[in-house]
Amino acid sequence: MAETKPPPEWMAPTGRGWRALDQREVYQNPWIRVREYHAEAPTGARTVYGVVGFRNLAIGVLPILPDGRIVLVGQHRFPLGDYSWEIPEGGAPVGSDPLEGARRELREETGLEAAEWTEVLRFQLSNSVTDERGYGFIATGLSQEAASPDPTEALAMARIPFRDALEQALAGRVQDLITVAMLFRAYHMACEGQLPEPLAKAMLARNGETR
Amino acid sequence: MAETKPPPEWMAPTGRGWRALDQREVYQNPWIRVREYHAEAPTGARTVYGVVGFRNLAIGVLPILPDGRIVLVGQHRFPLGDYSWEIPEGGAPVGSDPLEGARRELREETGLEAAEWTEVLRFQLSNSVTDERGYGFIATGLSQEAASPDPTEALAMARIPFRDALEQALAGRVQDLITVAMLFRAYHMACEGQLPEPLAKAMLARNGETR
Repeated sequence: MAETKPPPEWMAPTGRGWRALDQREVYQNPWIRVREYHAEAPTGARTVYGVVGFRNLAIGVLPILPDGRIVLVGQHRFPLGDYSWEIPEGGAPVGSDPLEGARRELREETGLEAAEWTEVLRFQLSNSVTDERGYGFIATGLSQEAASPDPTEALAMARIPFRDALEQALAGRVQDLITVAMLFRAYHMACEGQLPEPLAKAMLARNGETR
Repeated sequence: MAETKPPPEWMAPTGRGWRALDQREVYQNPWIRVREYHAEAPTGARTVYGVVGFRNLAIGVLPILPDGRIVLVGQHRFPLGDYSWEIPEGGAPVGSDPLEGARRELREETGLEAAEWTEVLRFQLSNSVTDERGYGFIATGLSQEAASPDPTEALAMARIPFRDALEQALAGRVQDLITVAMLFRAYHMACEGQLPEPLAKAMLARNGETR
């Protein structure tokens, strides 16, 4: 991520931050830790604030094949009770190297190894309630090994033309926000010359055009 | 959102879904409800699963001015203890009309009213732990009225050239994932002829070019 220039003036924070008055832990498991605070807002108002702390970073990997197809995984998700097609994703302990986590998740979920890795997004997933942070990577130069999913994961895998995946996000059928953001970020990269030209051309080709 | 065509064959779910064996509520406040389950995974493995239920939908609104600038709001966020520049966002009760929530949040946070509204994204924010769903809207035809923020909100407001906002997302300084996804979705719309041509041209203009 290019953080070379200083931030522009309009981004300077104004006012004072939130102040925690007290806290108690109300729940924890191996993935999350929920705390309830009494807090004072920047306006001076006092409020109860429940914060969901995450033990893992969220890592998303968009694997792109030389012919412009991408790799998605399908799985049943418990919280929403639905079946979700997503880029390969997983957690890496907070404080660990996100790239190492990305390599591991890609390998575990798809059996793919990538020769080239590019970090293309850093994000906060739901920053009014959780402290979850994440990283998005593009993986290219792919080779297929054997997958080794987590014991609770039953994953399907599909190699889909990039535009077809984008179309499903636009239709509201791919809704996982890391996946959605990464698809549109990859579109942006393809259009702005941030990917090798033959790859960008293959990704942006429409059905019926030469890929 | 265009959901006209049936889903492609590759999207068909395989295997069986998760099964909840029991549940207990471990925490709740006006915004979230945390439940712990014993659950059986699609693989048959049994596990403990903590699910954070959200009482609100997440609504994000990208307001675009006729000259291609967009409107961002800046605020201190409690969970990560940082200052965050984002598109206007807020919650609308699950089951309520997302567009009504979008109009209200835009008005409360910025004092802006919009003549045209377009729903451009539907998403799940962190679907391995929470059931939070959200909607993204583009708002155009803007007129300025008086803002009326929530008593805990102290908001700054900035009108920023679209490319400058995109640059801060690329630099990792704008990290809110709804904002990040909406910026790249708007870029996609501008490039694909999904916005009026003069507006798209103004948004995509670089510094120094005529806007």
